[in-house]
Amino acid sequence: MRAVSAASIASLLNRLPADTVTIEPDALSEGAHDRWTLDLLRLARGDLPDAPDAIASPSSTDEVATVLRWASEAGTPVVPRGGGSGVCGAARAGPGSIVLNLSRMNRVLDVDEVSRVVRVEAGIRGDALEAALGPHGLTVGHYPQSIELSTVGGWIAAASAGQASAGFGAIEDRLLGLTAVTAGGEVLRLRAVPRSAMGPDLRRLLVGSEGAFAVVTEATLACAMAPRELAWDAFGFGSFDVCLDGLRRVMQAEPHALVVRGYDQADATLAFGRMGHPGGPVAIFGFDATSAGVTERRAAAADALGEGAHALGSAYGEHWWAHRNDTVRTYHRVMGEERMLGSGVVVDTIEVAALWRDVPALYANVRTALLAGAEAVGCHLSHPYPSGASLYFTFLVRGADDRAVEDVYRTAWATAARACLAAGGTLSHHHGVGLLKAPFLDAELGATGASLLRRMKAAVDPAGILNPGKLGDERRGPR
Amino acid sequence: MRAVSAASIASLLNRLPADTVTIEPDALSEGAHDRWTLDLLRLARGDLPDAPDAIASPSSTDEVATVLRWASEAGTPVVPRGGGSGVCGAARAGPGSIVLNLSRMNRVLDVDEVSRVVRVEAGIRGDALEAALGPHGLTVGHYPQSIELSTVGGWIAAASAGQASAGFGAIEDRLLGLTAVTAGGEVLRLRAVPRSAMGPDLRRLLVGSEGAFAVVTEATLACAMAPRELAWDAFGFGSFDVCLDGLRRVMQAEPHALVVRGYDQADATLAFGRMGHPGGPVAIFGFDATSAGVTERRAAAADALGEGAHALGSAYGEHWWAHRNDTVRTYHRVMGEERMLGSGVVVDTIEVAALWRDVPALYANVRTALLAGAEAVGCHLSHPYPSGASLYFTFLVRGADDRAVEDVYRTAWATAARACLAAGGTLSHHHGVGLLKAPFLDAELGATGASLLRRMKAAVDPAGILNPGKLGDERRGPR
Repeated sequence: MRAVSAASIASLLNRLPADTVTIEPDALSEGAHDRWTLDLLRLARGDLPDAPDAIASPSSTDEVATVLRWASEAGTPVVPRGGGSGVCGAARAGPGSIVLNLSRMNRVLDVDEVSRVVRVEAGIRGDALEAALGPHGLTVGHYPQSIELSTVGGWIAAASAGQASAGFGAIEDRLLGLTAVTAGGEVLRLRAVPRSAMGPDLRRLLVGSEGAFAVVTEATLACAMAPRELAWDAFGFGSFDVCLDGLRRVMQAEPHALVVRGYDQADATLAFGRMGHPGGPVAIFGFDATSAGVTERRAAAADALGEGAHALGSAYGEHWWAHRNDTVRTYHRVMGEERMLGSGVVVDTIEVAALWRDVPALYANVRTALLAGAEAVGCHLSHPYPSGASLYFTFLVRGADDRAVEDVYRTAWATAARACLAAGGTLSHHHGVGLLKAPFLDAELGATGASLLRRMKAAVDPAGILNPGKLGDERRGPR
Repeated sequence: MRAVSAASIASLLNRLPADTVTIEPDALSEGAHDRWTLDLLRLARGDLPDAPDAIASPSSTDEVATVLRWASEAGTPVVPRGGGSGVCGAARAGPGSIVLNLSRMNRVLDVDEVSRVVRVEAGIRGDALEAALGPHGLTVGHYPQSIELSTVGGWIAAASAGQASAGFGAIEDRLLGLTAVTAGGEVLRLRAVPRSAMGPDLRRLLVGSEGAFAVVTEATLACAMAPRELAWDAFGFGSFDVCLDGLRRVMQAEPHALVVRGYDQADATLAFGRMGHPGGPVAIFGFDATSAGVTERRAAAADALGEGAHALGSAYGEHWWAHRNDTVRTYHRVMGEERMLGSGVVVDTIEVAALWRDVPALYANVRTALLAGAEAVGCHLSHPYPSGASLYFTFLVRGADDRAVEDVYRTAWATAARACLAAGGTLSHHHGVGLLKAPFLDAELGATGASLLRRMKAAVDPAGILNPGKLGDERRGPR
């Protein structure tokens, strides 16, 4: 792709406050990718495509509009970027484009204790948001594993769900209002209301839009009282199918747990081996310990599991809660360990979802598909609903070297994707699409669905400057 | 508008099974309007605009596609129609257009007791849907007052919410998958999954789309166990502000009631006068009587109300539940009564919503605005959330005669709409937009929001044949 000319970069610099735009090489390299494992592999082997030509870090919605107007006039692609913690490559940026880094837009603008809502700039990180709400006794209840890296804008763009989604829902259930900037630099302000029937909800158009439809700069999110204490229950099972069917009955009994998770044998060993778990599938439930009727609701959840479950006490859940983000906190160490496993090793995850009727086949078929090319396949259920659940697979693929493994990885993904779709599932529950899943959009949405997405993208971004080559525009993008 | 030619109608007839298309004058007249009070007034005074040229009543998604392909080729506007129970004029159809009546597509296609979901054709009426689920012990939990008239497709198109939305959410919370046909006759099939992050959710694009973006022909809806018994509590208050603030605290305590409603003095008298209510605002709560922790949760709700509330027992709620749909059941009688009030009387409703912080001003300001031109203004809160609530106003306007009242009505609406928007509210909570609210779309969504809606509409329906003159296309429509 043609590089952005020096004159054009100078024109951008002229329109923005000093220190808003950088062309410093290390920053550009860092801004070229997110945490998609394949890009990290390419980075490790030194052949990630070249970096973008500039990174703009605006401090306001107006400055974002300035950048996008400049980009529209110049026809320059813009890749919006939150925390850079995405795992599907949605934030990949290359030569000829600039990165729009939202991380300076990280303020809490208003805490409304009456309505229990918070208005923030989209670049605020999850942990900073929760820290700001703490003194008010509030929480957004949105706790993705990436909470110490990811931003509110990224949550919206990737259609994120948090670890307490059983209780607090996913990001769309918290999103009440927003400000966004279109590709043409127009500012969209959608008032914060609990619900509206004034046409199709444009807030929802931006959930899962991956920076390709507009750039979210502010959001108003619903909060709740932060639980003062959590109460944990855990159960063991003879098989994961028995665990899954028990979790279905639990969700359908609606005991209003905040956290509901289930682990197959492999993932249970990973999650609880250190605390002496003897093996076998495990489920944990976390409740707000002081909520009304919690004793009866915990009992109802245990009853719903039935005779196939044996109680394991509170320690499993407490252990998980204490260590739930360790793999992200120790990310660089883990990446190092992966490298230490030797050249040619890649670890990735695939989070799919289906109706309960399809969940057993989804588990069996995706696992079998992965095992055809991968090893160390583990699975847990982390986002359950009365109607179905998400299954989260972790797998390791190995090739002769860091180059050969790429084909093994792509084949494993394609095989797993086919198995998921054949079982009636969706290929993404909360990681978005990015470059990784874009090749499967047509298969999941059908020709008409994919066409509608592309036509909508073209309608809101006629010049195609917002994250081109990604969602709704993926046919001209990089792989 | 130019009438559809006889040759064109003949071409449509030739493509469809016998008895699928009617041009019978009484049917055409009935298909020309929904239950928008202004059209009913015009009907009463004999000057509703002329009827559409034909009504097609397809029996399958394929036949819907046939109709839309014919319409695309001929450039003929198509007005999709569910139960015709809308109250904003979204189903108004005139000369030069045809009506696409979905009422023959009324089958239950699948009841999945494992996932607790039901797949239906979009033309099924709410009462028929619930009757079909009864033997399975299931309910969709979506109970709009129009349930005996309205259809699943209409619920989706108008972004409906039911009377038990506190417990079951609104239609988007039940909608898991759908089949729809685009203006060009392409079939969109979105698999039923509990949630997906595969791009912006196209299911949500059709919620609130009023037949202007695509025609929904099938839907998969989440169900729940139908409560075997409801437990009712009621409370009285010295003022509606105290009631509203109490309901806020109740919703934020999350007692998981199925029904939460509050009535101001005027609406409480209308709702409970017959059972001897002495006057003053009232709130009622309905719980699933056998759900886990219900005793504690009922107590928590009462506690959250605080000292400003006095308990009124269970009879108020039981009375409401028994009579909740009477005004719809006796609709023709009521309309007759309205006529009996004399020429020049119109009764209408306006359902708005805002964050709790804005709810007191929303109530005061919209009520004051209405009272400037209307009489008998009553209000109830019928869809509460932890973050805010919907307020539902009923008002009566009076003019010198059936013609003069139209200006009084339009002025009352415009004044109330300005007051609602100034208070931070949305002009539609669950009745959609139609012809009634379309003039306020730009004011609520802003120029950018309204522009995005129009650009999206043009992208998915480039020929502008789907319900033209309505949502996203309202500038060329009738008033």
